[in-house]
Amino acid sequence: MLPVIDFIHTNRDRYVSELKDYLAIPSISALPAHTADVKRCAEWTSGEMQRIGLENVRLIETPGNPIVYGDWLHAGPTAPTMLFYGHYDVQPVDPVDLWESPPFEATVRDGEIYARGAADDKGQVFMHFKAIEAHLKKGGSLPINIKLVIEGEEEVGSRNLDDFVRSNRPLLKCDVVVISDSAMFDRGVPSICYSLRGLAYFQIDLRGTKSDLHSGVFGGAVANPAMVLAQLLAQMKDRSGRVKIAGFYDDVRPLSEAERAAWRQLPFNEKKYRKDLGAPKLAGEREFSVLERVWARPTFEVNGLLSGFTGDGAKTVIPAVAMAKVSMRLVPDQHPDRIAALFEDYVRKIAPPTVELKVTRMHGGKPWITEYDNPFVQAAGRAIEQGFGKAPVFCREGGSIPVVSTFQEELGVPAVLFGVGLPDENAHAPNERLDLTNFHNGIVASAILYKELGGLPK
Amino acid sequence: MLPVIDFIHTNRDRYVSELKDYLAIPSISALPAHTADVKRCAEWTSGEMQRIGLENVRLIETPGNPIVYGDWLHAGPTAPTMLFYGHYDVQPVDPVDLWESPPFEATVRDGEIYARGAADDKGQVFMHFKAIEAHLKKGGSLPINIKLVIEGEEEVGSRNLDDFVRSNRPLLKCDVVVISDSAMFDRGVPSICYSLRGLAYFQIDLRGTKSDLHSGVFGGAVANPAMVLAQLLAQMKDRSGRVKIAGFYDDVRPLSEAERAAWRQLPFNEKKYRKDLGAPKLAGEREFSVLERVWARPTFEVNGLLSGFTGDGAKTVIPAVAMAKVSMRLVPDQHPDRIAALFEDYVRKIAPPTVELKVTRMHGGKPWITEYDNPFVQAAGRAIEQGFGKAPVFCREGGSIPVVSTFQEELGVPAVLFGVGLPDENAHAPNERLDLTNFHNGIVASAILYKELGGLPK
Repeated sequence: MLPVIDFIHTNRDRYVSELKDYLAIPSISALPAHTADVKRCAEWTSGEMQRIGLENVRLIETPGNPIVYGDWLHAGPTAPTMLFYGHYDVQPVDPVDLWESPPFEATVRDGEIYARGAADDKGQVFMHFKAIEAHLKKGGSLPINIKLVIEGEEEVGSRNLDDFVRSNRPLLKCDVVVISDSAMFDRGVPSICYSLRGLAYFQIDLRGTKSDLHSGVFGGAVANPAMVLAQLLAQMKDRSGRVKIAGFYDDVRPLSEAERAAWRQLPFNEKKYRKDLGAPKLAGEREFSVLERVWARPTFEVNGLLSGFTGDGAKTVIPAVAMAKVSMRLVPDQHPDRIAALFEDYVRKIAPPTVELKVTRMHGGKPWITEYDNPFVQAAGRAIEQGFGKAPVFCREGGSIPVVSTFQEELGVPAVLFGVGLPDENAHAPNERLDLTNFHNGIVASAILYKELGGLPK
Repeated sequence: MLPVIDFIHTNRDRYVSELKDYLAIPSISALPAHTADVKRCAEWTSGEMQRIGLENVRLIETPGNPIVYGDWLHAGPTAPTMLFYGHYDVQPVDPVDLWESPPFEATVRDGEIYARGAADDKGQVFMHFKAIEAHLKKGGSLPINIKLVIEGEEEVGSRNLDDFVRSNRPLLKCDVVVISDSAMFDRGVPSICYSLRGLAYFQIDLRGTKSDLHSGVFGGAVANPAMVLAQLLAQMKDRSGRVKIAGFYDDVRPLSEAERAAWRQLPFNEKKYRKDLGAPKLAGEREFSVLERVWARPTFEVNGLLSGFTGDGAKTVIPAVAMAKVSMRLVPDQHPDRIAALFEDYVRKIAPPTVELKVTRMHGGKPWITEYDNPFVQAAGRAIEQGFGKAPVFCREGGSIPVVSTFQEELGVPAVLFGVGLPDENAHAPNERLDLTNFHNGIVASAILYKELGGLPK
């Protein structure tokens, strides 16, 4: 491996210069005005993939933006195959006047490269391009078979990815999926994330009467749907923060003592966390630590409320209707379909007959876990340790990355999250950036990852 | 009285024709484009008051629209003085395309006169003008001293009336206030309303964190202000509809058995009421009838809710803030200031330390009652009986008419609501109308009212 690593170290300046070209393309998938830029970025990506020595590189058309595919499959019949997933599209840049340097003129300041897409996800995709290049240019081969899928619609919900994966199972057949589109635990604390929460999202609509009523003339005789909604929502959780939906916790996989013990060692400052959020006091289930609550416990949240008069001043109305958006974060082994059924049953049971109730299922996603003692996860850990000079922590994340479950389920293989961003790199905000030390360490770690994965049985 | 009544009967056509002129003036106080029309209407009103024989007629300027004043004070030192209040301004007419005839071209169809202001309030003001005219033209005098205050800002909250009354107490000194700006119980059921509910209106603002948070990343560790708001509101009422604010019912004057018995005789169809509202089921305190709930029981209502994401689709946000507009209808002898203190104490007591709470007092008004056995109220009842050929029912109303309390408190005299509108005459909607039989009966009843009041001790 030494020549490959040396090659990486001596090419640092070139990497940054090339990354700047990649970051110069405003591939904003959410804005129709940038359709041509998105296309150009797909072509730049495929061109780069050819330059670094990948084969079968091509744009695969979808009803939306093209997916860029490429592979290198000459590691031999006993070597495992890794599928790498990333995306070349980026978030919008508004409010653009809050950027300290133009979002599509990548600028290095204090060891960080500032540009839209630096961390999310071009910088992390490019890290793998350079690791692959180093292997192929310097060693002439890769220790594993590699397939790359770089999509252009991640920032608009990966709306064509599921279909693509489902209809291309033979093309995408692999032993492990690697995704570099996440952040490490903290600056100086490299990490491997091995579990994500799932989601079940609903809209509740209540109707009390056919139109808004005068609260003086009718108040006292009819149900107020805004009040009924409050009463329904209040019955979703008890005072200790525990969700009261019958059966909600049945399938929750308990945290192991080993995990709890490991997380207690993490450099987490609860006071700073609270202060950064501007919360008067943290909340939640007392018998679990803050990290346990956000990583390994399911939740019930109200995401939105709307009813009646919400302008300035006072209007004495009994609203005809009231609406809430609510969602539950799910943990292994909860299933969004089962939770949806439990939730809908519970709401129907507690809703009074004085209102019309409508529950709409909006969105769902399974929780994901690849146990941290999985050999692929452990191999990724060794790669991070060598690339960053420090053993990674194994942690979970509270959010959902739907594509992770998509790959794991459709292809039936474990997924490994191999992210080198930092939590404060403003992935979706002005002044997005990527720490260049992490970028360069990440290239080394990626190069080593392929070797570590290559040493495993298929 | 016979010549006066005869005079009224023989002038019916002229009354309708003159009322049409009054209704032709688009005196919409809410719209600046109609400022000149409002002024013109004030002048028309004062001109008419002079024509019918009132004295000291003048426009009294306010920071807003002028108040028209006039009086006739020659009934002798032992006769009581009645202050009549009404308004010459009207509601806007939008959506104007729903009107079956132009809102400012009064049109008679099926015994009803259709125009903006027909019922609210020009028609009812004009009824008194014609009753006064009949006395003065035919009998040469009135049985009581009369003062009239016709304002031009009732439809925009009577914003200058309180100051006017407070600074003109000697001018407005009287023994009873009569207001004709309300509806009778039902068609064919003339009524005297002797009590109105009061109001205490608040906005509750909660803040959980300094900005909206990702519900995946942070869900479980912080309070969700939308959920906390739901929990707070749910604690305002128990399942039986009873308000849980400590001390809330302390000052509620119990309904007498006589009142309950009288209301049970009213022609009220609960099934039709529910169906007209489009409610699946009525709600409220079971131990009180529907009329008792809306007329004589205090309430707690949520008038508006706003938090987080309320658009189409799903956004996985923990809102930073949540807002509710809430209000309580009050009954005698609850006081809005005392209720405000109880409410604020209660909210502060039950709000958790995980959120910042702000309670803003928006609006308040005292409940009003003139007991139905009050001599002035009974005199009004006798007048209605003679004018409509049917004894009136004595009822309350659930809404608030702030000017009623203003007069009663500032002048220290009882008020009598002497309204001849009907509940379905669309006072604030397209196709406002006034039943002409009620209009003509109302003129007779008003003429008799003055006589009945004149027979009472000062």
